[in-house]
Amino acid sequence: MAVSHFADRFIVAARRLKNPLCVGLDPHLERIPKEFGVRLDALASDASADGVRAFFSDVIDACSGKVPVVKPQIAFFEQLGWRGLRVLEQLVARARERDLLVVLDAKRGDIGSTAQAYAQSYLFPSSPCRADALTVNPYLGLDSLQPFLDASRAHGAGVFVLTRTSNAGGADFQSQLIDGVPLYERIAAALAPACEALRGSSGWSNLGVVAGATYPAEAARLRRILPNALFLVPGYGAQGAPAAATVAGFSERTDASGLSQLEGGMVSSSRGVLFGEGPVPASRSEWLSALTERLALACRELSEAVQLAPRPAA
Amino acid sequence: MAVSHFADRFIVAARRLKNPLCVGLDPHLERIPKEFGVRLDALASDASADGVRAFFSDVIDACSGKVPVVKPQIAFFEQLGWRGLRVLEQLVARARERDLLVVLDAKRGDIGSTAQAYAQSYLFPSSPCRADALTVNPYLGLDSLQPFLDASRAHGAGVFVLTRTSNAGGADFQSQLIDGVPLYERIAAALAPACEALRGSSGWSNLGVVAGATYPAEAARLRRILPNALFLVPGYGAQGAPAAATVAGFSERTDASGLSQLEGGMVSSSRGVLFGEGPVPASRSEWLSALTERLALACRELSEAVQLAPRPAA
Repeated sequence: MAVSHFADRFIVAARRLKNPLCVGLDPHLERIPKEFGVRLDALASDASADGVRAFFSDVIDACSGKVPVVKPQIAFFEQLGWRGLRVLEQLVARARERDLLVVLDAKRGDIGSTAQAYAQSYLFPSSPCRADALTVNPYLGLDSLQPFLDASRAHGAGVFVLTRTSNAGGADFQSQLIDGVPLYERIAAALAPACEALRGSSGWSNLGVVAGATYPAEAARLRRILPNALFLVPGYGAQGAPAAATVAGFSERTDASGLSQLEGGMVSSSRGVLFGEGPVPASRSEWLSALTERLALACRELSEAVQLAPRPAA
Repeated sequence: MAVSHFADRFIVAARRLKNPLCVGLDPHLERIPKEFGVRLDALASDASADGVRAFFSDVIDACSGKVPVVKPQIAFFEQLGWRGLRVLEQLVARARERDLLVVLDAKRGDIGSTAQAYAQSYLFPSSPCRADALTVNPYLGLDSLQPFLDASRAHGAGVFVLTRTSNAGGADFQSQLIDGVPLYERIAAALAPACEALRGSSGWSNLGVVAGATYPAEAARLRRILPNALFLVPGYGAQGAPAAATVAGFSERTDASGLSQLEGGMVSSSRGVLFGEGPVPASRSEWLSALTERLALACRELSEAVQLAPRPAA
């Protein structure tokens, strides 16, 4: 199995760790424990950047060896200005050093040489902020996705294309019917040939899709269109979907050891794991011990969700 | 006319300068004259950041007093990593100090608190990289646009929503017919109420659209749907559209002095003005003198394009 193929690496890690959890690194700054010193009145300051760096260094270290992948949300780092981007670069490097895959949630999309510049920013070996995979927006058309697919072919990068998002307004345009077929299914169908071309030795493709967990029936239809695409499923935990619903688009696969399980994507939780419900403790140590518990619970729930009922003994 | 309303400020500036040219700040790094010292083998370096800063400082100074607005393309700065973002912040501040409006071309789009974080990054008085307007992607639905519209209402920011882009693939999804109406027209129609609500004393709205110049008939139809939206029209110059075609979506307006002209948007040129055709000189001074000429020509062409034929004397 080629180590440089994103989907292959994810599948190996998820099998080893027995869960497909993706921890979202979304610095909801007002919820970071006071002890980290983030200044809400001065986001673009060294103090805030240092606080965000320390907070997510703790999160990354807690995730290492427990989950296969983390997903920084770049918007929250952009809020801090250039200092935020510097922190993001450091955190992405830290996660990769600790054997975590990094999906950068940036939802970029632009034409021609501009899309190329985004690919160069995040998916090349020479990228200043090199992630293992990137989320992208398909509205500008297939040619706008090509530079990302080229980076996938050349460097093994993963690409997750937005299809059906889990927000209330996701239906406004994504679900409009074109000759009876929703737009997002049209987009998925248009991606199918590239998806097949980018499969690795695990059978899964480096071209995946973002498929909101809010509507499991939609995930199941997407799976029929893209049988070998990894699904990035947001919406587990704080946003409300139970673990079993998040894997509605997964399919049964058997690994080399004969173990069958549901496979085919990663399930993302951000606020649910990072902060939980209710007030966040002001102290780092209290927050960290609660984080460790929430992380263990999420890993267990998802581990159970992907397990198939044991077969009756022969 | 409230100075804080983006569209009002643009209209005042475009009338005073007699052209609607928007100069795109797209660092096609390989075309920047050698003398600036950008290192293509080391994008994430102080030398490259310094070179890009010096190059665009020259461009901004050349634009000041000649054109109403500049449009940095953030992807090209992201290529340089955090140093690129720091340069972008410095350039945006420089442009605003020199009385240029700044439309940040970022095509951001995400849900809920993430869209809010992007608005906080670029459209608030406290933003680390405060622009006057931002381009955004509508694929995630109307609720995903709301934080940008809220920033418009609160701080006078401009918001340009992608509708029909000028790339070949732009038709792939944007032009799919829903009950006989292309998707991008559906999106425009869905924006119409917010567009009306965000009009300033000039009559033009802070909610505008990106409307590719490639298809003037499409621009004319968009104008009927959004009579008071500013159009951001890319594709003038290097990408091929002649000046007259770029103003196909503009409409006749008469200012306080009784002068009638075509009005209703800004026409963007990036490579055409920055680099022209053919080889770029290695020396700063040669490039700068050619830039000044290209800028004057573009201003003149667009100034003529928005002028109406003189009325016969009474």
